[in-house]
Amino acid sequence: MPIDTRHPREIRQDIRLGKLTGITAGLGQNYVQANLAVLPRDYAYDFLLFCQRNPRPCPLIEVTDVGSPEPVGVAPGADLRTDLPKYRIYKDGVLADEVTDATPYWRDDLVAFLLGCSFTFEWALLEAGIRLWHVEHGKNVAMWRTSMECRPAGAFHGPMVVSMRPIPAAQLSKAVTTSARFPNAHGAPIHIGDPAMIGVKDITKPDWGDPQPFGPGDVPVFWACGVTPQAVAIKSKPPFMLTHSPGHMFITDVPNASLAAL
Amino acid sequence: MPIDTRHPREIRQDIRLGKLTGITAGLGQNYVQANLAVLPRDYAYDFLLFCQRNPRPCPLIEVTDVGSPEPVGVAPGADLRTDLPKYRIYKDGVLADEVTDATPYWRDDLVAFLLGCSFTFEWALLEAGIRLWHVEHGKNVAMWRTSMECRPAGAFHGPMVVSMRPIPAAQLSKAVTTSARFPNAHGAPIHIGDPAMIGVKDITKPDWGDPQPFGPGDVPVFWACGVTPQAVAIKSKPPFMLTHSPGHMFITDVPNASLAAL
Repeated sequence: MPIDTRHPREIRQDIRLGKLTGITAGLGQNYVQANLAVLPRDYAYDFLLFCQRNPRPCPLIEVTDVGSPEPVGVAPGADLRTDLPKYRIYKDGVLADEVTDATPYWRDDLVAFLLGCSFTFEWALLEAGIRLWHVEHGKNVAMWRTSMECRPAGAFHGPMVVSMRPIPAAQLSKAVTTSARFPNAHGAPIHIGDPAMIGVKDITKPDWGDPQPFGPGDVPVFWACGVTPQAVAIKSKPPFMLTHSPGHMFITDVPNASLAAL
Repeated sequence: MPIDTRHPREIRQDIRLGKLTGITAGLGQNYVQANLAVLPRDYAYDFLLFCQRNPRPCPLIEVTDVGSPEPVGVAPGADLRTDLPKYRIYKDGVLADEVTDATPYWRDDLVAFLLGCSFTFEWALLEAGIRLWHVEHGKNVAMWRTSMECRPAGAFHGPMVVSMRPIPAAQLSKAVTTSARFPNAHGAPIHIGDPAMIGVKDITKPDWGDPQPFGPGDVPVFWACGVTPQAVAIKSKPPFMLTHSPGHMFITDVPNASLAAL
């Protein structure tokens, strides 16, 4: 995949001007990309608490001040209303619109949450010499709703969603220690091995994304997935919610490596 | 120091019955002890956000549901109104009372925050063979207000407070890697070396606690300190705030080792 090696500031500028409109994979060289969830202030406490109680699926890297679209902690000067290529608008939990500029939907009572994403630990796995089939083949990872309930917080509750990557048995330890260094990007695997133990009935039929082929000796390894907070938030049917469109992430100024806990 | 090796559940029962009334150092064998801060719901969002934005001084390990005194995540069945040996009550930011049972002060709109404490990483340092003068001599650690401002959140803002331990130069790396494994107990040092760089004017005169003597080759190592959130919260003068009394912590059911990120 060709990589746009410019600084995220320049890439975000092109997105803002409508020059870049596609998915953000390959944009920016090893900078943290983030999931976006925007909710009214009335829902922000419960959502913040939900993230605090479920840090593996919901690793918060930024929460804006009420009404402010600027993520001053991870990308000062950026504007979350315009600097993502595509947005989804949900009303009462139902998809109501998909737009490339969220400015018309912005309100003074909104709080934006940015959550770490699997790109960061996948980068670390690749750097550590672990091959990822879906990256090599330009496919999406495989995702499932599990039987593991998140710890609820006020209006928000629901099952954890996981992503799965087949890992050779000889690289299991390396996959665990490598991803564990990035707790702000889902961290270590949530489960290794038997899919049935976490309520995944058919490893060949993901709920989202593409099926992943298994080589001899490959073991299914499951990580908590950033689809969880969106699925949980939508399920609670907030009157208004704004998110990124799948794959159209926010690109921060934070290098992946600097997110390492150790 | 003699250690009470019973399970935290039994120790909390004795505290609840008034049989144990002193500081909690030495109570429970290597279980996580926590700082307590209780605030009205109206202040809870800003405080939760402050902790999220300043995880080094404010490592959240539990937030209760509104009105509930039970920390179901880290000590199911416990009661935060009775299971700490001593409490402080603040009204409009002023110390108003010190009690051994907080039940009369409990209200339906209160939210309790438990924050990790230095006991956990100190346990790890000791296990790693790093000697700590204040532990060996039964003294308090040395603490200072610094020139490093926390990232503000709503009503809450103020400088970071740090604790300092002299560490032999040959053990600096070990001290960093060992404590870094415990991000939920302040994590890695926030500063190593020259005290002036973080606004500490006189290393022999702490703002709180006892001065620490330096041996030849010892380097001052500074960790973010749990005094920070209390100091910041009191400064914002909330109409009501309940905390543990210094040294009289909440003992959780979580083993120190299980808090390790890696």
